[in-house]
Amino acid sequence: MDIQQESLELHKKYKGKLETASRVKIEDKHDLSLVYTPGVAAVSSYLASHKEETGNYTVKGHTVAVVSDGSAVLGLGNIGPEGALPVMEGKCVIFKHFANIDAFPLVLSTQNPDEIVQAVVAIAPSFGGINLEDIKAPQCFQIEERLKKLLDIPVIHDDQWGAAVAILAALVNALKVAQKDLITARIVISGAGAAGTAITKILLAEGAKHILVVDRMGILYTGRSENSVEKEELALLTNPHNETGVLSDALHNADVFVGVSGPGILKPEMISTMAEKSIIFALANPIPEIMPEEAKQAGAYIVGTGRSDYPNQINNALVFPGVFKGALEHKVTSITTEMLLETAHNLAALVTEPTPELIIPSVFDDRVVPAICRAIHNQSIFSLKNEHENGF
Amino acid sequence: MDIQQESLELHKKYKGKLETASRVKIEDKHDLSLVYTPGVAAVSSYLASHKEETGNYTVKGHTVAVVSDGSAVLGLGNIGPEGALPVMEGKCVIFKHFANIDAFPLVLSTQNPDEIVQAVVAIAPSFGGINLEDIKAPQCFQIEERLKKLLDIPVIHDDQWGAAVAILAALVNALKVAQKDLITARIVISGAGAAGTAITKILLAEGAKHILVVDRMGILYTGRSENSVEKEELALLTNPHNETGVLSDALHNADVFVGVSGPGILKPEMISTMAEKSIIFALANPIPEIMPEEAKQAGAYIVGTGRSDYPNQINNALVFPGVFKGALEHKVTSITTEMLLETAHNLAALVTEPTPELIIPSVFDDRVVPAICRAIHNQSIFSLKNEHENGF
Repeated sequence: MDIQQESLELHKKYKGKLETASRVKIEDKHDLSLVYTPGVAAVSSYLASHKEETGNYTVKGHTVAVVSDGSAVLGLGNIGPEGALPVMEGKCVIFKHFANIDAFPLVLSTQNPDEIVQAVVAIAPSFGGINLEDIKAPQCFQIEERLKKLLDIPVIHDDQWGAAVAILAALVNALKVAQKDLITARIVISGAGAAGTAITKILLAEGAKHILVVDRMGILYTGRSENSVEKEELALLTNPHNETGVLSDALHNADVFVGVSGPGILKPEMISTMAEKSIIFALANPIPEIMPEEAKQAGAYIVGTGRSDYPNQINNALVFPGVFKGALEHKVTSITTEMLLETAHNLAALVTEPTPELIIPSVFDDRVVPAICRAIHNQSIFSLKNEHENGF
Repeated sequence: MDIQQESLELHKKYKGKLETASRVKIEDKHDLSLVYTPGVAAVSSYLASHKEETGNYTVKGHTVAVVSDGSAVLGLGNIGPEGALPVMEGKCVIFKHFANIDAFPLVLSTQNPDEIVQAVVAIAPSFGGINLEDIKAPQCFQIEERLKKLLDIPVIHDDQWGAAVAILAALVNALKVAQKDLITARIVISGAGAAGTAITKILLAEGAKHILVVDRMGILYTGRSENSVEKEELALLTNPHNETGVLSDALHNADVFVGVSGPGILKPEMISTMAEKSIIFALANPIPEIMPEEAKQAGAYIVGTGRSDYPNQINNALVFPGVFKGALEHKVTSITTEMLLETAHNLAALVTEPTPELIIPSVFDDRVVPAICRAIHNQSIFSLKNEHENGF
């Protein structure tokens, strides 16, 4: 039986993957009067006048909403809330399994950014964090930005930042193995959507200087007529010499290819024009930009994909459970770029001796979540200290 | 330690009462590829083109949202979403314990009816039903009505209908014990909010003819200057002789007092003016309209409260788990008055020999939920049959 059929049957058998559970017993009237009326009135009264304590007495302290409008689901595109729900439930069970964080999937009947923002703000009091997921670009950028401003709990669009952190972690080790340097490396990013944009920003924050971003129209450059506001900004941040051309042009002498685009778009002959010891991250899911065997044959030195059946799986499942666990445990209200950078470095450091076939830890490595929690905690102390020193 | 303190400590110890749990194992990469990418793509694709099957493959088939804006919480009033959250979590663990229904608490940062409706519609695709809770009157009426029209899943404001069904069930048996008849019984309802309005409507649907509703201004009559639209309607449905006066006037020769109002407002001297074998349901929580001992001493024949420490606990916890379980199991998209009436009768029938001290089954009676499921199922078949015969 293939994995698709097996997955369908699993979902049908269990009616999905997630359920709720009680943390308390309800065996008699006394129990009932503690969890519900009249005893619960004491907790309600207390929280009404101590809102900041809500997380210590309710689900809010350990629960994340996984929110999607179903507009950009996996490789499937805009399939709507019902199609998105199994993916969001999947994220919720991953949260639980790897980080013991409770998460609940909320798929939305609207794809209007204003309505999405309103709905998430409306339901936010139940949650300790908001994980936005599979929302298409460019809407995802403004939705995330507005929610970050409106809410006092961490908000992350995981397709952007989860992916970006996992890729940076893998790249840190890949460059080490290839004996290259991020500052001088020539990097081509294929895909200018949610993931491509965030990866670009995080690589720039880490010090990369030579990035070209390529979308369906070719290399992004400032003033290109097809540019959205977001792509114009991305063009400004990259491509200082306003190069033009298509993917094959961009890849001439490039050191790194990061694909977050579509199946099969990277051809072997393009790899052969890249620099020595080229690094190929072909992350389109489930069918990558090039299959690893083919990439290797064409001369790639290190290959990573999003798939679990090849070495070097670069998967945001490595990142999001730990990021939210760290934020909830240490009462961090906003995830900063510095936290994400340290997260990537802590992840990379878990592979003590990286090789071309081992540049990123496995999601089943139980050091992953604690390493990320440390990063979030460290940087939150650091930013508090900075605020203090700046007189806030 | 008193129950309030004990409840506070319980909530703090467990950080609330609810958590999520996985229905599937994630022990290796194969498991992960079934619950998440790439296997989950098969489920997503399938549901994108078979939306009506979503409940068979996801949480939607077994999960209810417990939604509150915190505007009318227990006896505490408008304490906002944080204060409401422990109550909603309590309902969720009751759903799980008594009916094995998964439920998730969503407390809202808005009390604007339009925004509440929009938020609930936005998040509805994840859920099989919506349990509105502790939303103040009159807003609750239009919110429930609009959501019922907009959604194809059952929506119930439990403060209205859960309470009304439990009271009707108790009243059926109380009248039997007192050898009185609903049609001729003189009934006074104290409280014209969410619960009082629904109780009035359900008693009328069951055949009651002599109902007076009393609020803080006295007996409701048509044309009363303080009447809201909803109270004017309630006055029209009741009080055919346009009687005026206060609670003590209404209670002269009355057979039944149903209090869903406030602590201590029913005085012993009022009970002594009621008809023989009077029935007193003093349901204000946690402090009833009159304490049972006092009511008995003043001549009451049967006394019920909402409390677990006295006989005849009339509690909507008896009702909501079974109603939603019945609806989810039998794919009922809307809860009708007929379903609620049969639910009340099935509940009443579980007490085969009612006495003044035993008119309603215990919430711990494991026949309760199945009896309610039967009622929902029966009436759903009946209404389908009716639709069919009417040529739909």
